Amino acid sequence: MSTIFIAEMMGTMFLILLGNGVVANILLKKTGGNGGGIISITAAWGFAVFAGGLVAVNLGSAGELNPATVIAGWINGAYTTSQLLPYIGGELTGAMLGAFLVWLLYKDHFDETSAEPHLQLACFSTSPSIKNTPLNFFSEVLGTFVLLYVAMSFQGSAVNLGSTGRWPITTLIWAIGLSLGGTTGYAINPARDLGPRIMHAILPIKGKSSSNWSYAWIPIIGPVTGALISILIFNLLH
Amino acid sequence: MSTIFIAEMMGTMFLILLGNGVVANILLKKTGGNGGGIISITAAWGFAVFAGGLVAVNLGSAGELNPATVIAGWINGAYTTSQLLPYIGGELTGAMLGAFLVWLLYKDHFDETSAEPHLQLACFSTSPSIKNTPLNFFSEVLGTFVLLYVAMSFQGSAVNLGSTGRWPITTLIWAIGLSLGGTTGYAINPARDLGPRIMHAILPIKGKSSSNWSYAWIPIIGPVTGALISILIFNLLH
Amino acid sequence: MSTIFIAEMMGTMFLILLGNGVVANILLKKTGGNGGGIISITAAWGFAVFAGGLVAVNLGSAGELNPATVIAGWINGAYTTSQLLPYIGGELTGAMLGAFLVWLLYKDHFDETSAEPHLQLACFSTSPSIKNTPLNFFSEVLGTFVLLYVAMSFQGSAVNLGSTGRWPITTLIWAIGLSLGGTTGYAINPARDLGPRIMHAILPIKGKSSSNWSYAWIPIIGPVTGALISILIFNLLH
Amino acid sequence: MSTIFIAEMMGTMFLILLGNGVVANILLKKTGGNGGGIISITAAWGFAVFAGGLVAVNLGSAGELNPATVIAGWINGAYTTSQLLPYIGGELTGAMLGAFLVWLLYKDHFDETSAEPHLQLACFSTSPSIKNTPLNFFSEVLGTFVLLYVAMSFQGSAVNLGSTGRWPITTLIWAIGLSLGGTTGYAINPARDLGPRIMHAILPIKGKSSSNWSYAWIPIIGPVTGALISILIFNLLH
Repeated sequence: MSTIFIAEMMGTMFLILLGNGVVANILLKKTGGNGGGIISITAAWGFAVFAGGLVAVNLGSAGELNPATVIAGWINGAYTTSQLLPYIGGELTGAMLGAFLVWLLYKDHFDETSAEPHLQLACFSTSPSIKNTPLNFFSEVLGTFVLLYVAMSFQGSAVNLGSTGRWPITTLIWAIGLSLGGTTGYAINPARDLGPRIMHAILPIKGKSSSNWSYAWIPIIGPVTGALISILIFNLLH
Repeated sequence: MSTIFIAEMMGTMFLILLGNGVVANILLKKTGGNGGGIISITAAWGFAVFAGGLVAVNLGSAGELNPATVIAGWINGAYTTSQLLPYIGGELTGAMLGAFLVWLLYKDHFDETSAEPHLQLACFSTSPSIKNTPLNFFSEVLGTFVLLYVAMSFQGSAVNLGSTGRWPITTLIWAIGLSLGGTTGYAINPARDLGPRIMHAILPIKGKSSSNWSYAWIPIIGPVTGALISILIFNLLH
Repeated sequence: MSTIFIAEMMGTMFLILLGNGVVANILLKKTGGNGGGIISITAAWGFAVFAGGLVAVNLGSAGELNPATVIAGWINGAYTTSQLLPYIGGELTGAMLGAFLVWLLYKDHFDETSAEPHLQLACFSTSPSIKNTPLNFFSEVLGTFVLLYVAMSFQGSAVNLGSTGRWPITTLIWAIGLSLGGTTGYAINPARDLGPRIMHAILPIKGKSSSNWSYAWIPIIGPVTGALISILIFNLLH
Repeated sequence: MSTIFIAEMMGTMFLILLGNGVVANILLKKTGGNGGGIISITAAWGFAVFAGGLVAVNLGSAGELNPATVIAGWINGAYTTSQLLPYIGGELTGAMLGAFLVWLLYKDHFDETSAEPHLQLACFSTSPSIKNTPLNFFSEVLGTFVLLYVAMSFQGSAVNLGSTGRWPITTLIWAIGLSLGGTTGYAINPARDLGPRIMHAILPIKGKSSSNWSYAWIPIIGPVTGALISILIFNLLH
């Protein structure tokens, strides 16, 4: 149990450190990467999943880093009920740690950006470009559906670059960001959004806005729904 | 038969969802990726072919996703006549489904872009940068010739990154976009253009222009011609 | 002999079609990729070497596509004297064919760019950013030295992604463009520069300038010198 | 001993030539890559580690190119005390050689940029975006911790793309640049910063500023500290 917790915590910590880190580098004032654009953000998130996933695998878990795919795997019989807590708890804890490290690393730059608190929040959690509850929910469902359905297809085809086949998934994450991320910022992972949002609420960020809690359920329920639909359709077709 | 239809339909749906999705993210108003440039568009199309191809392979077809290469394979003896309909029908159906999902996902952003209907159309189908029927036709012939000739060379050299060798093809698609896509937007695939164009004509897109049907034959006949030429030259040289 | 000629001709044709093609897409007016930047140009040149190299290998040559590395291989005993002509002749012929195809593909865009003939020339051959004969020569020597020395190190380490190990070389070409290409545009290959320069002189390009023949020897002698130095140092150290 | 010295010297020379080369191409005036952005800089540094690492491996060392990871490996028992000098001495010498080659290659462009000496210095050594000694130090600790911890996890998972598994590390370097490089420019390697800084002090660069020696200890002590912490935590968790 504690092996899984620690593995998923460490993996998700690296995921969020590298993932939220690039958002900070591109969006915050006076950074080296300011204005680096969507290609930079989406590339680094792809690489972050690669790095974080292998850190977790190396420590003895499956390297999910994502409660939505854990729940789908549990429905599908890949995980036992008693594994749910260490997986999801580790992921949430790791996401909070990663978000804390990004804030500490870029603290002076968060301070410099205190006049634009929406940019500060974007370095923690996702927000919709245009608020529209059904469509925002649909965005997170669809992105996670693509993530899990295609990832399962990769495994079925035994595609491997390296022994764990994570390079194809890296390009998939990169593509989801470029192609489906333009509406809600592709959380596609409850821990990726909730953990950092909790840290945004807790941390003494200079000039910060509210943590937009009214939106917080969408990047939780949407990804879980999308993951379940992908399991359903994948099992139906095979 | 229905295995092939479903496999190609699902694969092409993911292809167009990720491929047209990135165009929407880069071109439509108020998206996260607005203005992301040609590197973003071409990278995501490359990854989209990777993902969509493996989805189809995993479901039991060859993962062509492209009527032009199916017809070339049929001429070359790789497919039977009775396989043509499920392949091409599945691809066209999948392309329509993918285009529908992109429109639904980015619906608010299509609405925001109603004053520039040519950008809306670009999120469905291709258009020439400069209208010139012989040269536009030549663009689609040349792009598809490069696609199929080089892809056949990859197989002959037994280059594989992963068990199905699709990473080289990913970089090829990326390169064709960067290098040959500047004139007509590199359809190089009849289903990729026709399926979404039909959806553009059908869907109630706010402020939409005509679907430019007078151009529609070029991204159909051009790719088929280019694929046949590549088979001809490849066979001649081997 | 004719096998080598045809293989290198076809491979270099694809190399220049994809390589010069991206320059045209980024620099010429009214293209889809106008202004796409150095990341787009250097990525596509990397992918072009990947694609062209494998086309040539598939047809039965070593896939050099570069007279400088052919001459270095001849000095090193990898090629016989009688192989020099088909290798180099095929490469030069292929480069001319590729440059012709780029011009035909982007003909309307070359016309639109007739007021900036230096941009037209850049879609064929390289030019120095700042004219300085010794330093420009040094640029081409250094770039080709890095190309061949590191490529030989890759082989020695038996690094292979895919059966022919061309993905490492793809990233190397990409890196040379990004890191060493800022002065003279990294010809690092006599055929890549001379073949298209001949086509620039021959073709009826609207508004074209001179073909800058006084510079033409540098991207010929420089790469050959750099390749010989890399053989010398590599052999010295091993 | 001299094998290690020469191998690490050559590898680090290529690392800095390609790494500092891209900074010069993007930052200096009148280059082909001017303004190419953070995606170009970070991609080329990733590829530079790939190329330089394999050059060193091919010549008989471990391809560390980094005194911080050498010291960590020595603590961990991977290197003997007598290997420290050839490793670190070779790396520092190679970094100086690489920085000299970048200056020579881009000499005219350094001259053109004489009015902005901070850009000249940036083509040699790193500087903080916002001066803050504890946080700048933390940046270098954290970046190197991520580098070494994740690299060790890759080995443990036996991930290999190519025989030496360096493609995962390439994406990791790329990600660290995009995600953690926005504050101090991710030296994460004492030789990468000190060697070029010495050259900046020595070389007759037109209009150059001071070499900012008061900052020089941070990219030395920070990376060593980060590497030791990563060894500590990795051993603790395994």
